[in-house]
Amino acid sequence: MRIILASASPRRRELLGQIGLAFEVRLSGVEEKAASAEPGAMVCGLSAQKAEAVLAECREPQDVLVIGADTVVVLDGRILGKPSCAEEAARMLEELSGRTHEVYTGVTLLYRPEAGRYTPGEDGSQKNGFRRKTFYEKTKVSFYPVSKEEIALYVNSGECMDKAGAYGIQGLFARYVQGIEGDYNNVVGLPVGRIYQEVKEWLT
Amino acid sequence: MRIILASASPRRRELLGQIGLAFEVRLSGVEEKAASAEPGAMVCGLSAQKAEAVLAECREPQDVLVIGADTVVVLDGRILGKPSCAEEAARMLEELSGRTHEVYTGVTLLYRPEAGRYTPGEDGSQKNGFRRKTFYEKTKVSFYPVSKEEIALYVNSGECMDKAGAYGIQGLFARYVQGIEGDYNNVVGLPVGRIYQEVKEWLT
Repeated sequence: MRIILASASPRRRELLGQIGLAFEVRLSGVEEKAASAEPGAMVCGLSAQKAEAVLAECREPQDVLVIGADTVVVLDGRILGKPSCAEEAARMLEELSGRTHEVYTGVTLLYRPEAGRYTPGEDGSQKNGFRRKTFYEKTKVSFYPVSKEEIALYVNSGECMDKAGAYGIQGLFARYVQGIEGDYNNVVGLPVGRIYQEVKEWLT
Repeated sequence: MRIILASASPRRRELLGQIGLAFEVRLSGVEEKAASAEPGAMVCGLSAQKAEAVLAECREPQDVLVIGADTVVVLDGRILGKPSCAEEAARMLEELSGRTHEVYTGVTLLYRPEAGRYTPGEDGSQKNGFRRKTFYEKTKVSFYPVSKEEIALYVNSGECMDKAGAYGIQGLFARYVQGIEGDYNNVVGLPVGRIYQEVKEWLT
């Protein structure tokens, strides 16, 4: 089986490698659109769009497992995505300082058997051994208070720019993390414990 | 100020570097002895012995901050240290499988001002600007069930041998980690968030 990670994130790539799976990265040019404002449904939907777009372009005859994922940060029910500029990053971090927020990562796992072992339905649906799972994991993250000067220094480091909520828990920002409740790797961007548990029966 | 990490652990070294502190590693040949069977008191005591032994050998005139740390895994009130052989590692992991345990890391921070700015007391105590903090952090860790075959494979990987509780949360074993409650880095071996908060006033 060929495992394909449908994400450009170097952090997700590292995590999937960490649990010992051999995989490759593929991206589709398709732009995802959120269909729900509820965080769990939103990240599940976006992860599914990423995985489906990549699977649609898989031309190899052997069986493939495509993994799509999407992460958002939620504070008081409001979704914080990736900051568009340094000012927005600083604003996000000021809001998160000294408080507890939630990180949602949605995951979609699509398994397509090898060619000849399934028949695509006339309506485009795929049956006969085709498998699909979508879920999300939620982790609570508590920050120590972070001063304006500390935020300015951190934003200056550049670490925050491509990350939901404007921080990387696995980087310099660990200085300000008091604790979490849930899966740590989910905050980094991929709940590899849950993923492994979900796919291990497919791997054998 | 010179920062000295009194630990041989490559994981602790990595974590302290991650939060952006410049430091060096020094070890003392002194063998620590646990003075308490209560996990919190035990790791605090052992971390203090490590830091004190290294500070006692510091000969430089400038001010130094020595960081000592000790980590244990606790299941049902019983302390699991580092496994002495593959069989013991497998036994530990069988006990931890499908359950929640606790990881305690004790930390001692010793700050000695530059020479001439303090006077050692006649009884060996150090006053006049000498500072000391000892604390521990506790993190709960929940594992998915791990089969005997999975444990055998993991033990075979060698990853478990120098680690309290016979697993590395930051390695392959992430496959089996359902979630945690508390500081993740505390499980890896050094609660760098808490350490940074405790020493930041000393750094300026």
